[in-house]
Amino acid sequence: MTVERWGVHEVELTGPAHGNPYADVRLTAEFQYRNRIVEVDGFYDGDGRYVVRFSPDREGTWRYVTRSNAPELDGRRGTFACGPPGPGNHGPVRVRGGHAFGYADGTRYLPLGTTCYHWTHYADDELEESTLRSLADSPFTKVRMCLLPTKDMVPPLLAFPGDTPGRLDLTRFEPAFFARFERRLRDLLALGIEADVILLHPYDKGHWGVDDMTREQDFFLLRYTLARLSAFRHVWWSISNEYDFNRAKTAEDWERLGQFVQRHDPYQRLRSIHNGTRMYEYERIYDFTRPWITHQSIQHWDARLTGDWVAACPKPVVIDEIGYEGTVERRWGNITGRALLRQFWHAAAAGGFVGHGECYPDGRYDDSAWISRGGRLRGESVPRIAFLRRLLEEGPADIVGARRRGEYWLEYVGARQPAHLDVELPPGAAYRVELIDTWDMTVTELPGVHRERVRVALDGRLDLAVRVRRTE
Amino acid sequence: MTVERWGVHEVELTGPAHGNPYADVRLTAEFQYRNRIVEVDGFYDGDGRYVVRFSPDREGTWRYVTRSNAPELDGRRGTFACGPPGPGNHGPVRVRGGHAFGYADGTRYLPLGTTCYHWTHYADDELEESTLRSLADSPFTKVRMCLLPTKDMVPPLLAFPGDTPGRLDLTRFEPAFFARFERRLRDLLALGIEADVILLHPYDKGHWGVDDMTREQDFFLLRYTLARLSAFRHVWWSISNEYDFNRAKTAEDWERLGQFVQRHDPYQRLRSIHNGTRMYEYERIYDFTRPWITHQSIQHWDARLTGDWVAACPKPVVIDEIGYEGTVERRWGNITGRALLRQFWHAAAAGGFVGHGECYPDGRYDDSAWISRGGRLRGESVPRIAFLRRLLEEGPADIVGARRRGEYWLEYVGARQPAHLDVELPPGAAYRVELIDTWDMTVTELPGVHRERVRVALDGRLDLAVRVRRTE
Repeated sequence: MTVERWGVHEVELTGPAHGNPYADVRLTAEFQYRNRIVEVDGFYDGDGRYVVRFSPDREGTWRYVTRSNAPELDGRRGTFACGPPGPGNHGPVRVRGGHAFGYADGTRYLPLGTTCYHWTHYADDELEESTLRSLADSPFTKVRMCLLPTKDMVPPLLAFPGDTPGRLDLTRFEPAFFARFERRLRDLLALGIEADVILLHPYDKGHWGVDDMTREQDFFLLRYTLARLSAFRHVWWSISNEYDFNRAKTAEDWERLGQFVQRHDPYQRLRSIHNGTRMYEYERIYDFTRPWITHQSIQHWDARLTGDWVAACPKPVVIDEIGYEGTVERRWGNITGRALLRQFWHAAAAGGFVGHGECYPDGRYDDSAWISRGGRLRGESVPRIAFLRRLLEEGPADIVGARRRGEYWLEYVGARQPAHLDVELPPGAAYRVELIDTWDMTVTELPGVHRERVRVALDGRLDLAVRVRRTE
Repeated sequence: MTVERWGVHEVELTGPAHGNPYADVRLTAEFQYRNRIVEVDGFYDGDGRYVVRFSPDREGTWRYVTRSNAPELDGRRGTFACGPPGPGNHGPVRVRGGHAFGYADGTRYLPLGTTCYHWTHYADDELEESTLRSLADSPFTKVRMCLLPTKDMVPPLLAFPGDTPGRLDLTRFEPAFFARFERRLRDLLALGIEADVILLHPYDKGHWGVDDMTREQDFFLLRYTLARLSAFRHVWWSISNEYDFNRAKTAEDWERLGQFVQRHDPYQRLRSIHNGTRMYEYERIYDFTRPWITHQSIQHWDARLTGDWVAACPKPVVIDEIGYEGTVERRWGNITGRALLRQFWHAAAAGGFVGHGECYPDGRYDDSAWISRGGRLRGESVPRIAFLRRLLEEGPADIVGARRRGEYWLEYVGARQPAHLDVELPPGAAYRVELIDTWDMTVTELPGVHRERVRVALDGRLDLAVRVRRTE
């Protein structure tokens, strides 16, 4: 069987089922292509079944050999062939050019994400398929989704065995939970949508007992999760959501956890950590210059600060939470579609990206349907984000760099109402200039080619932007 | 002649006109009522005319005696009678109750200010009278206005003699300039509008030579200005506008200047200093806990931080610049009326106050008509600020304290669109609840009296607020 490049090859083995194999059995494998060797962890999948999951990044023949403290899992060898990537497989996303992302094959990647924290946790196939249809029709290229439950949830399955609050068995895992999670990861992969997996969060408040585990318990969970999920090329790691709301952990704990993931992920998937905050407290954002962090995963209420974050740290700016479009009473879930779209544009014009979320109650579940359970998208911002995506796809990968070189930029006027905008054009070049209505989704080119300076009449309209492109 | 309490009594004297009387002649006077003695500076008004201006704060007979190094000005004595305040004279405004203001006679004062930086500088009577008519019809109770010119202005008169940039005579003053300035101060006083006089600013950029004067030159200007203006009960001192944009001065300089004004103002008028800023840089706001500062004069783009400023410093919060309604290209002058009104409401609900400004070009002058020259008000926010003023006048002087006691508060929803607002009501009391449309200017009472909790339906409308008042 040939595995496509950046696809997943699985080695299945049978081994000991007695005792606690999750804790007792160590299983690793070395995969080798010519002189390149990648060591990965295997994992126990229950019922005596062991799996080593591997994602090859070179085409050709790979050999492997296993290592284990269980004799029947040790020294098992094999080979498999890695062929070219299939349609739509561009490889994993990497940071490219400072503040931008690209797939491994060179294709541009725009992180226009949305949030469905627990869309896989309710074992509700109809809802999950509705979510997938919504995502397929949406402009979104990334979903933030949690591994662990919140205290208000009563899901049929959790990552750990058990269903009694405070009495989960934290020494084992629940393979059926992971199997469903992985099935939905594969569905996202088929849609070309990245999965930003949130490993920890502070919303358990001692209920299930999963947000104040010991360091060893955290490492145990992370290592198992990495063994199962890291081979999926579209997985990103968010060490924690709103890490600073977790009172059981210190700054040192978060550093150890981040470095642990860095050390144990053979593929070096994208890694960050997301602050909670009173939104305007700039200083509570994580120190994204830390070496283990690949990109800035920010929560803040104001994307007008994007330029600051771009300047402060040479890593992509992804404002994963900025307030959700919706009608719930909590302040994070009741901004208008127009307000959310403005955030997307402020960030985009400065070379950053905003994450979407929706809280329109659907009457069926709780107050915050899309962001917690997925389902149907109904907000006004979604089609306008699709329009923005189309414009961004027409532009350079690195807006900041292109602007610096005088090649391309966006001037976003947004909620302001200047009578006109005077755009200074670098000397010695000619430019095409377009007026963009970000809400009505129109692009109107100004006649002619412009040099040195152009005055764009805005006529009291709101939510406008100007696109400037060098023509010679 | 009887002078009203908190009015102005002037003693005019004739003295030396040779040499440089502004620098050479020292003139002070002691005013005495019973055992209360107030020492004030006199000033040279040109042509051998000297004036001592005094504002009595007690009714009865006051005596005075002058002191001077010029024999003909020394030892001059007299008396005058101080009677009750006239209609509309409530005395000077003072800080009252931590974050609020009140007049000396106990009347509440709400600092709903506007900005007309140089409305008195152009010697254009028609324009100045138009400004005064606009103010008379407006809800504004304070005007920020500059003493010194900016580099772009060519006014017929300046505080110093001369009309050649860089060649003003900084050793003398121009009495005709001050006379016009004072005439307009008296006009404001008649309208019941406070004058927030900005003593220094950083907009001269070395042109006239007035924003990088020596310490002695600054003190010379301030002492003369205090001698002329401090007797007007409605004058406030803003040591500088956007002090942090002035590169010629250090933090120590500002402290010295603030303390100088504190030391030489016999009436202890309100004093503050106003930051420039990149708007979101919280840390550039002055340290308002400094003893010489009476209130927080903030520039910031976001009045949602009002609660923070209230908590950080036990002095009134006055956000004197937050972005002006208008259509100019500069980012400080093109927000919508709706956006500006939202700032007023955010501050008001948290116990603070925002300052207004308008930049609708009128075609006659430059781009920023009202804020620089006054004239006609045309913005959409003005009538809505009047509506807010009426509501605030119906409420308690100290919203923060009233809220703390469970008596009265405003919940401002503004740009958010929650389907409803659940308001928790302190136990053991009954409340009346009203829905306020801040844009359409309506107040709709919810039927009945409410206890413990009330759900207010908002029906997808924007710019709403809820007023809660205890009835028993």
